[in-house]
Amino acid sequence: MRFTAETTADGVSQRSFALDDIPGVLWQPAGQTAGKNTGLVLLAHGGGQHKLGPAVLGRARLCAAAGLVAAAIDAPGFGDRPRTAADEQFLTQFRRLTAAGEPAAGLVFRYNAGVAARAVPDWQAVLSALLELDDVGPDAPVGYWGTSLGGGIGVPLVAADQRIRAAVLGLVGRDTLAEAAARITVPVQFLMQWDDELVPRDDALALFDAFASAEKTLHANPGRHAEVPFSEHEAAASFLARQLTAAAAG
Amino acid sequence: MRFTAETTADGVSQRSFALDDIPGVLWQPAGQTAGKNTGLVLLAHGGGQHKLGPAVLGRARLCAAAGLVAAAIDAPGFGDRPRTAADEQFLTQFRRLTAAGEPAAGLVFRYNAGVAARAVPDWQAVLSALLELDDVGPDAPVGYWGTSLGGGIGVPLVAADQRIRAAVLGLVGRDTLAEAAARITVPVQFLMQWDDELVPRDDALALFDAFASAEKTLHANPGRHAEVPFSEHEAAASFLARQLTAAAAG
Repeated sequence: MRFTAETTADGVSQRSFALDDIPGVLWQPAGQTAGKNTGLVLLAHGGGQHKLGPAVLGRARLCAAAGLVAAAIDAPGFGDRPRTAADEQFLTQFRRLTAAGEPAAGLVFRYNAGVAARAVPDWQAVLSALLELDDVGPDAPVGYWGTSLGGGIGVPLVAADQRIRAAVLGLVGRDTLAEAAARITVPVQFLMQWDDELVPRDDALALFDAFASAEKTLHANPGRHAEVPFSEHEAAASFLARQLTAAAAG
Repeated sequence: MRFTAETTADGVSQRSFALDDIPGVLWQPAGQTAGKNTGLVLLAHGGGQHKLGPAVLGRARLCAAAGLVAAAIDAPGFGDRPRTAADEQFLTQFRRLTAAGEPAAGLVFRYNAGVAARAVPDWQAVLSALLELDDVGPDAPVGYWGTSLGGGIGVPLVAADQRIRAAVLGLVGRDTLAEAAARITVPVQFLMQWDDELVPRDDALALFDAFASAEKTLHANPGRHAEVPFSEHEAAASFLARQLTAAAAG
């Protein structure tokens, strides 16, 4: 893992890194003592976004305020990463459907499942490298926070990687994800939008139902896919801080 | 409103009061300056409980920690209040059904609707008297917090009383309540238990759907009717403090 740039703003340090061909960013409270964090949170961006998108930056600040180290990477085909022919084909189709006012949800979720298959091993390699950093520490409890595309990546990742002890997931439905959700047993906070134009209400409820976690909470709010209220971001950061503190203690 | 006793424990003052034949309790941070509160929260107890039941006491402490004044009363037929012949008949039927292992939800919700019809004017009279107290202040923004029986009382009360600016409700379904819910426009945090043995899942979801509030949040957790996790009580107190602060500011 190579670090390439560092800036500090509003008491939060932000460092760019690369692991092989995966570009990422690491945030933590400026001056935080090495290894003395509440935990490490993997922040996954949504569709059309990247590791430094505004939603990721906002969540990184909430994490830092809670003493959490946070890391984001570009998903395959997003941000600074090259697009494959399939990525370009998806974008062309997506723009055509959207311009025509036709439903694109089916296309998006099939594409996202393919992105997730590539993103899960990326995240696992990045997580291994992050836990070797003195600033993070090998015993940092690990959480995951991702919705929409980040939820589509998160469900199979959290199901596959026992190092992840708690997750905020959401804005996805049972389609392609229910089987992996049934293998998740760690605490989950699951977000849905009550009037989501991409994820049918019953599909989101069915995915929440599918998680095997004894401790899981569904948070639903009115509004469309992209209209999650800010209070849910604050609640997500609090949930992760509480869960990772508990994981570190027990 | 007559005050009859006062105790202070753990930094919280607790005063018993009576308004006509309605017995109640008022909590606030010990030494709080008169009128300098975050708001006033009406705390309604659940079925089989009363104004000093453990759930009410726990919520009163969370309110006090957030700078909120909190008040509870005994619902008609509960706690220190006399039972009517209908109350006694309900209890007899309820015990018979429960002892026989037969479903009692229908009986409970019909009875609760009758209790609510008597409890709504009680709460409105108590609220008027509380707002005249120097310790509360006429401009204190008012919230409501009640689930199960307290939800059955709260939905018609919040629909009827424009002084209530935010509400935590839950553990009830659309049955008898959907029409009143559709007249509620203030922010609502709605709790449901995913495996509620009394309230069918779809009935709870339909009641959440019925609230006319632009700002409403559904919180669902696994477990039976009485198994709401403690973190939801903390989240409820935070919600009320945030909403009442916003109501006072705007």
